[in-house]
Amino acid sequence: MTVTITAFERSPDGGRGLARDTRVRWALEEVGCPYEVRPLSFGAMKEPAHLARHPFGQIPTYEDGELVLFETGAIVLHIAERHAGLLPADANGRARAISWMFAALNTVEPPILELVTARFQERDRPWTEERLPLVRDRIRERLAPLAARLGAADWLDGTFSAGDLLMVSVLLRLRPSGLLDEYPGLAAYVARGEARPAYRRAFDAQRAAFLAAAPPAT
Amino acid sequence: MTVTITAFERSPDGGRGLARDTRVRWALEEVGCPYEVRPLSFGAMKEPAHLARHPFGQIPTYEDGELVLFETGAIVLHIAERHAGLLPADANGRARAISWMFAALNTVEPPILELVTARFQERDRPWTEERLPLVRDRIRERLAPLAARLGAADWLDGTFSAGDLLMVSVLLRLRPSGLLDEYPGLAAYVARGEARPAYRRAFDAQRAAFLAAAPPAT
Repeated sequence: MTVTITAFERSPDGGRGLARDTRVRWALEEVGCPYEVRPLSFGAMKEPAHLARHPFGQIPTYEDGELVLFETGAIVLHIAERHAGLLPADANGRARAISWMFAALNTVEPPILELVTARFQERDRPWTEERLPLVRDRIRERLAPLAARLGAADWLDGTFSAGDLLMVSVLLRLRPSGLLDEYPGLAAYVARGEARPAYRRAFDAQRAAFLAAAPPAT
Repeated sequence: MTVTITAFERSPDGGRGLARDTRVRWALEEVGCPYEVRPLSFGAMKEPAHLARHPFGQIPTYEDGELVLFETGAIVLHIAERHAGLLPADANGRARAISWMFAALNTVEPPILELVTARFQERDRPWTEERLPLVRDRIRERLAPLAARLGAADWLDGTFSAGDLLMVSVLLRLRPSGLLDEYPGLAAYVARGEARPAYRRAFDAQRAAFLAAAPPAT
């Protein structure tokens, strides 16, 4: 069976690798699993065929034979469970790596999503300029202990894991904000993630898809 | 080995079961695993002994012999993997239940956390009254497709799973907002979760802990 994922036909981030399909592509590249991509327009994402795959009408999804999964975290975990390379072999190390997966998505990402919402959906609201510093402080409340725990280590708990894959992916969303640069250890951690050949292949693939879908220059 | 979890010494929700230790207690009750609780003051949560358990200085954590885990989602998954009752036996059903676990925590909970932040941390800010309707609309964008997918079913995908446990727990935070009542199917779903004997035991245990820690009446 061939693994098929869904992705934006034309990513709203302009091919900067911030859409969540990049996280799944990265996981598939780390374990050497080939995959195909079904690109979806914004309209197609809300049609019944895709809502059957993804109840919230988002990307990515993952299909392998009769199995259809949604939620990036669940897809990355599924890939990590079926291939070597993303979870430690010992049971306790594996459980701790999964703690970091959930920490990336449920503790670190929510305040970052607040910043994204404030900067885009609420950009023109009269309160946004005054409110942004509060949102940025709530992100710092996550980054400071994360930087403290990482310390001088390369990865969060021993060798690179699916926990690092998701944490780096979540932190990458912060780069335009400048917040990452306040924590040099975290900035270096993210750079280590981006330097992995599997990340480069994932990034290049999503970028090529964006460019291929771009309307012709007029 | 005895499982030990950490919880607030005195929960800021007044014993209403909204602190995240209730989710872990519920999972342990569903599978019939006895546990002990180490109550922590707010000060103790930020001390080195607890930061070694939980990098972000929060509750709950989970200890079983040499294994120390943090993040509610990871703890619930760990419990579900080691005991029958929270994940389907077939591999595809299991993977789909895990999709719902991540959906609860990474798709449905973030806008709900925004509402909690707006109502508490930003309560006295001049923009909050005008901003709250936007936050509530973003929650509806999650609740409407969730209600559509659930339909008339009892649970999200076949029998009750760890995905339902987390989704019900996340939705419970919405009860004071009135938003849940806009989706009768979801309100009934939450009520089904609350009616489970294991949930009642978990709720009663956290409530008893709160009452035992309450300062004596003056």
